[in-house]
Amino acid sequence: MIQKLIAKIETRNAPIVVGLDPMMGFIPEHIKSQAFAEFGETLKGAGEAIWQYNKGIIDATYDLIPAVKPQIAMYEQFGIEGLIAYQKTLDYAREKDLVIIGDIKRGDIGSTSEAYAVGHLGKVKVGSNSYYGFQEDFSTVNPYLGSDGIKPFLDVCREEKKGIFVLVKTSNPSSGEFQDQLIGNQPLYEKVGEKVAEWGDTLMGDSYSYVGAVVGATYPEMGKTLRKIMPKTYILVPGYGAQGGKGEDLVHFFNADGLGAIVNSSRGIIAAYQSAQYKERFTPENYADASRQAVLDMLEDIQGALAKK
Amino acid sequence: MIQKLIAKIETRNAPIVVGLDPMMGFIPEHIKSQAFAEFGETLKGAGEAIWQYNKGIIDATYDLIPAVKPQIAMYEQFGIEGLIAYQKTLDYAREKDLVIIGDIKRGDIGSTSEAYAVGHLGKVKVGSNSYYGFQEDFSTVNPYLGSDGIKPFLDVCREEKKGIFVLVKTSNPSSGEFQDQLIGNQPLYEKVGEKVAEWGDTLMGDSYSYVGAVVGATYPEMGKTLRKIMPKTYILVPGYGAQGGKGEDLVHFFNADGLGAIVNSSRGIIAAYQSAQYKERFTPENYADASRQAVLDMLEDIQGALAKK
Repeated sequence: MIQKLIAKIETRNAPIVVGLDPMMGFIPEHIKSQAFAEFGETLKGAGEAIWQYNKGIIDATYDLIPAVKPQIAMYEQFGIEGLIAYQKTLDYAREKDLVIIGDIKRGDIGSTSEAYAVGHLGKVKVGSNSYYGFQEDFSTVNPYLGSDGIKPFLDVCREEKKGIFVLVKTSNPSSGEFQDQLIGNQPLYEKVGEKVAEWGDTLMGDSYSYVGAVVGATYPEMGKTLRKIMPKTYILVPGYGAQGGKGEDLVHFFNADGLGAIVNSSRGIIAAYQSAQYKERFTPENYADASRQAVLDMLEDIQGALAKK
Repeated sequence: MIQKLIAKIETRNAPIVVGLDPMMGFIPEHIKSQAFAEFGETLKGAGEAIWQYNKGIIDATYDLIPAVKPQIAMYEQFGIEGLIAYQKTLDYAREKDLVIIGDIKRGDIGSTSEAYAVGHLGKVKVGSNSYYGFQEDFSTVNPYLGSDGIKPFLDVCREEKKGIFVLVKTSNPSSGEFQDQLIGNQPLYEKVGEKVAEWGDTLMGDSYSYVGAVVGATYPEMGKTLRKIMPKTYILVPGYGAQGGKGEDLVHFFNADGLGAIVNSSRGIIAAYQSAQYKERFTPENYADASRQAVLDMLEDIQGALAKK
């Protein structure tokens, strides 16, 4: 699946991923009122609104982008009905041949970690049958519990040719509280990066590993160091746009081959129609067109920065 | 909710929690064949088997225990149908007035963390209505992302009078890879413990905080130190039984008031009928009676160890 992701990034010249993190406040009124007319102001109504909203964004952008990254929390907050919308979104993205990065940040140990891996990337056995659960292509994983938490994911990835992105240095302001603590003269996130490289060596594609890393766009200097520590690791870079990261901050996350990083934008794309930059030009009814324009502008920013590198 | 948990622990003289981590291999054949007869060897069939199995265990033990801790991964692996079984299990445990600790180990930042908190502990807004999602009483939370990940949970806990248990030192063999790394002369898990105490001070019950910690039974010496670093923190202790922890290892997790810790056993109780200790006495048909006996034996072990302290 890392091969497919890289091939799609190259074909589209687009090292980006659209974060499908649908907050209710982002969803245009016309979509909400139609969903609520049908199902009431219920969890089911919320799920329907989310799904229709996502469908519009996917339809407007799928030919430009290699991948989507739905944030499961935004669905899970609506319970079962929200998770049905998550599943529908994944199924539709797959139909459009997009690579799916499930932003689930799961992390546990042993058989529990295996259950997460099976449910999100692999197949679960029921009697003599087996079934895909949510069927993502990649999942994000939390490393705090150590190798016992990661290895069950690697086993499923090996079997299914799928991948993970392990949290190394997250984009938020307080990420340093634990991640930046110095162990000897090396911060914890570098130790985690070394482990990611080690896990990754056991599960290689052609030039990059099936084991990726998450490193926030908001910490470009750390990205530079981590790029060296993990040369064969694909880096998923959140924090572009709404969180403050810019194209020029991102160049050090890439390798000399122009590959090695994929930059996520969520709010900046899916709620573009609400932003100062686009709200003059696009109405809520045209939210999906605004998202398409935001993708084009993001690509121009990143491609421009990479060309200058 | 920490008050309710403590009151129930005291009334029942039972500082324990039953981990509802239903692996298919634990579920007796008669339950599986009935579920599969009704729904086939499908995800729905698996969900039904899990739910019937859990119901039997809750019915056989609820008068002895204060709380259950369902491990969501074991449900999530079966996709939507598994999560419906999770929801049913929670609803039934609530009906039996058990405190529910959702072992979800979620951890993200900002609005994403808020979405998890709302979905598992609080109420989510849909138009002018609001709804509980999974409606747990406590959730386990991963601290790797720092305060930005924890604070949204604290806000929801404050409003709903609910709580969290933050992972500090996990019970697995490789937990030391990152958690034991020395920062100056202090291991990372102690730093996390200090933060847990700090977060906890902002959200106190009578003598214990709504912010608890997870510390594995398999590391009793570390438990002793952490007990001192976090005097007002309730400690959720996994790793008893199947993972190797014994009653005598647990005494240092408790305070002088006999409170401050709640010990989890999952496999040791829910799959007791399969273990060497119980399989002579109980058939698969009587799996729930074996679970009840395992609860009684666990209580005797822990109460005995505490009496000797």
